[in-house]
Amino acid sequence: MSATRRTDIVEAATERFGRDGYEETKWADIAADVGLGPTALYHYFESKQHCLYVILDQAIDDFRTRFATLTAQAPTALDGLLAVLHDCFELSEREVLRNRVLVAEQGLLSNRSTSPREEEARRAARDRTRDLEFAWASFLAKAMRESAVIETDPRLLARAVLGLYNSVWHWYRPNGLVGLDQVREFFIARALAMMGVSPDATARPRIAA
Amino acid sequence: MSATRRTDIVEAATERFGRDGYEETKWADIAADVGLGPTALYHYFESKQHCLYVILDQAIDDFRTRFATLTAQAPTALDGLLAVLHDCFELSEREVLRNRVLVAEQGLLSNRSTSPREEEARRAARDRTRDLEFAWASFLAKAMRESAVIETDPRLLARAVLGLYNSVWHWYRPNGLVGLDQVREFFIARALAMMGVSPDATARPRIAA
Repeated sequence: MSATRRTDIVEAATERFGRDGYEETKWADIAADVGLGPTALYHYFESKQHCLYVILDQAIDDFRTRFATLTAQAPTALDGLLAVLHDCFELSEREVLRNRVLVAEQGLLSNRSTSPREEEARRAARDRTRDLEFAWASFLAKAMRESAVIETDPRLLARAVLGLYNSVWHWYRPNGLVGLDQVREFFIARALAMMGVSPDATARPRIAA
Repeated sequence: MSATRRTDIVEAATERFGRDGYEETKWADIAADVGLGPTALYHYFESKQHCLYVILDQAIDDFRTRFATLTAQAPTALDGLLAVLHDCFELSEREVLRNRVLVAEQGLLSNRSTSPREEEARRAARDRTRDLEFAWASFLAKAMRESAVIETDPRLLARAVLGLYNSVWHWYRPNGLVGLDQVREFFIARALAMMGVSPDATARPRIAA
């Protein structure tokens, strides 16, 4: 087993799933993309589904890590919020494709699998999704205590922000009519309004910590 | 062919897809639910996929009809907006299940089908989704002219409202920890804030037209 080879498979699969759709992609196509036979491929992933779960898990883990780093560094909750909202549009083309796979196929995370390897990967990705939601909710609860965002149920607000963000990847297409910069600007302004952050609060000059 | 029988199949399928998941459901289970053999079932729907497209189409058509009626009756855009936001939580248990199917499987609307009957149903549902988005965008453009909502790109704002609404059905479960009334109250308040509607504007007394 080679970690590089595993990464190659994940990247080829993300490309296929994001471009052609998960349902439409044949596992054999991915094997061909990376030049592996079915037996060799099986060492890395049991099935297309297994590979999908690993892609989802890595995507959510990346969000989670970036979120933790940015919020830990920020002097105030509002600074942290702004940093995270900007950061979640700093995406490579592959990450855009991965987001598209994530939102199109997240429903599959509820389907229990009969294969132990698949089921383990499914649970890992599902648990990590819950972790990310929990991290957002805890952070928003802190932001509420600092009066940076409106006082409401932090779990519901976390789901609303994540839901609004996820909805972008259902329709956004690279090289489409609406550019990523325009989407980012629109999304950040509307997400802040939804969270009850006044435009004045984000425009005030900030002193580096 | 009987219209009642067709409705029975659609209802049985919505129940199964919403409760057990689309992938997990076997077409034969639905046949058994309504007491039809595969040949008789085929008169109504070519496949599970065909039936799914019809369910999605009907769900979006319902939203579209209710949206058109409520916004046409309202004296102002703000009244129309409030009426629509309240209405979209007036749901039977079956409509909640249908929303869940809609958001879990909407990605399948992008996959072209090789069967003419399936493809026709897929296009109908996809076109109706676009119609609904367009109706929302036109309505929000009018609301912007009336200064009822913030001045921004109406197509992006339409997608944001629909995206926020759709995100609810990914996690909402009947008999779960969070009741539908609580979800409705939270969603309406946050959606209005996102659209730049001040709480004062919605609280002012209204004179019947």
